[in-house]
Amino acid sequence: MAVIGCGLIGASTALAARMAGTVGAIAVADANPDHRARIVELGFADLVTDSIALAVAEADLVIFAVPVLAMGHAAAEAAAHLKPGATVSDVGSVKGSVSEALRASLPDHALIIPGHPIAGAEQSGPGAGFAKLFDKHWVILTPEPRQDAAYLGAVAALSEFWTATGAMVECMDAAHHDLVLAITSHLPHLIAYNIVGTAADMEDVTRAEVIKYSAGGFRDFTRIAASDPTMWRDIFLSNKEAVLEMLGRFTEDLQALSRAIRWGEGDKLFDLFTRTRDIRRGIVDAGQESPEPNFGRDRDKH
Amino acid sequence: MAVIGCGLIGASTALAARMAGTVGAIAVADANPDHRARIVELGFADLVTDSIALAVAEADLVIFAVPVLAMGHAAAEAAAHLKPGATVSDVGSVKGSVSEALRASLPDHALIIPGHPIAGAEQSGPGAGFAKLFDKHWVILTPEPRQDAAYLGAVAALSEFWTATGAMVECMDAAHHDLVLAITSHLPHLIAYNIVGTAADMEDVTRAEVIKYSAGGFRDFTRIAASDPTMWRDIFLSNKEAVLEMLGRFTEDLQALSRAIRWGEGDKLFDLFTRTRDIRRGIVDAGQESPEPNFGRDRDKH
Repeated sequence: MAVIGCGLIGASTALAARMAGTVGAIAVADANPDHRARIVELGFADLVTDSIALAVAEADLVIFAVPVLAMGHAAAEAAAHLKPGATVSDVGSVKGSVSEALRASLPDHALIIPGHPIAGAEQSGPGAGFAKLFDKHWVILTPEPRQDAAYLGAVAALSEFWTATGAMVECMDAAHHDLVLAITSHLPHLIAYNIVGTAADMEDVTRAEVIKYSAGGFRDFTRIAASDPTMWRDIFLSNKEAVLEMLGRFTEDLQALSRAIRWGEGDKLFDLFTRTRDIRRGIVDAGQESPEPNFGRDRDKH
Repeated sequence: MAVIGCGLIGASTALAARMAGTVGAIAVADANPDHRARIVELGFADLVTDSIALAVAEADLVIFAVPVLAMGHAAAEAAAHLKPGATVSDVGSVKGSVSEALRASLPDHALIIPGHPIAGAEQSGPGAGFAKLFDKHWVILTPEPRQDAAYLGAVAALSEFWTATGAMVECMDAAHHDLVLAITSHLPHLIAYNIVGTAADMEDVTRAEVIKYSAGGFRDFTRIAASDPTMWRDIFLSNKEAVLEMLGRFTEDLQALSRAIRWGEGDKLFDLFTRTRDIRRGIVDAGQESPEPNFGRDRDKH
């Protein structure tokens, strides 16, 4: 396997594959010399290089883990050096633009299966990677509409690669992926970034006060707003249409809420707040989240 | 001590006080018969009644823990039955309107010290209460500008009441409190409610998909959007000016972001995302949050 771009996600992919025993040798390419030094230190790769050509030369599976706007360039560097029939995938958070970039740059013999593991952590860089990152997380693959045996076999093998890391795999159309992620991930991140920025610009409330009293709700947003700036800049620029569509809907709904508050329409507020509790219950019931801990409640009672 | 209104916060206040040993008898009043039955079961109150008059009759400290729009009414019921020199406080998330409501309804001899413990949990009702809710959380008191010894003594005693629960106490002006909480708590909640609502209204993305792929950021918002609908309706209606001001700023900033995305202004996006990381670091450094766990990272390396 070759991992091209070895930050949090790339490194975790390599570590997860090693732990699952699904790959033999792992070659890693990264443009950042500090990253390469760290990866050598960490010892999970057999080859660490700044040359994409070198990294992909022997690989049956190539995973591009660079920021999504860098995918095309990275693919172009790999193109002439890919093994015939190699599977080429990625881990980018946007699938439409990445699929196009890969298809435009890679030779016809490559079996291109774009992918996206829905997982992350606050820290960045290869040292932040860990094998369990994908455990019990979803990985979405957006295969091309090919029905030939070689391609379908590659999709099956890639699915097994990911399920061996503990992940669950789902296949869908790239455009649908980008819409789903726009509402479940990209818009939430944008909103979190925005509210932290708005708070930082307050003249009458100090940053220290915002930090001090952040347990009231703000703190949850700051965690999301600490996500990697490069990765997220690229995501918003690459998934522009879907994000702007979501943003439009979100803002319309927010203006309706603002109006209800201004005119004291308590029932409208109450109805929305009750409706949203159901969605939360849906997530807890689906086993996607534990109900909040018991906080020693039983102990307090007589 | 009398606790008037005994949901999550009221019950936790009673349990925390009992555990700290700071009060003798605890009287609880609640209008909801199911709540009263549960409180009797739980056994942390010496008197459980639907009569506010009865509950406050012997109390040196009265804590109003009803939804903020119900404060005035509850105070009016208590007024004639308060012990002379009793301290009257509350736990409401809005201080300006609550202070006015209390002052308007209560007799001059009452020592009114509005308060707000910045703490909460997902569940509602008295059964959800627990003693450690306030541990290491901030409690804001908004005392009146009185300098007489009796009042100052009461503020000191109330501060000690809260520090005994593990909380840290800060005093400030009621209007300032409402502004701080508008940005650190009220607006985040409004945004979370809104985004969950927007997602629920999508025609092309199913609710099941939203739930399934919510690990990407959406999940964090749903936790906040499961907060008690009555409590939050009252908060938005009571802190209208500050919330609408914050909403206005937030929306202006969001439109600027939307513009940057539409016109591909990557630098503007990158700058904001880098700026917001600093605020997150501020929270971690202030010890208000642990850095994310190590996820077994060391174990994975050679």
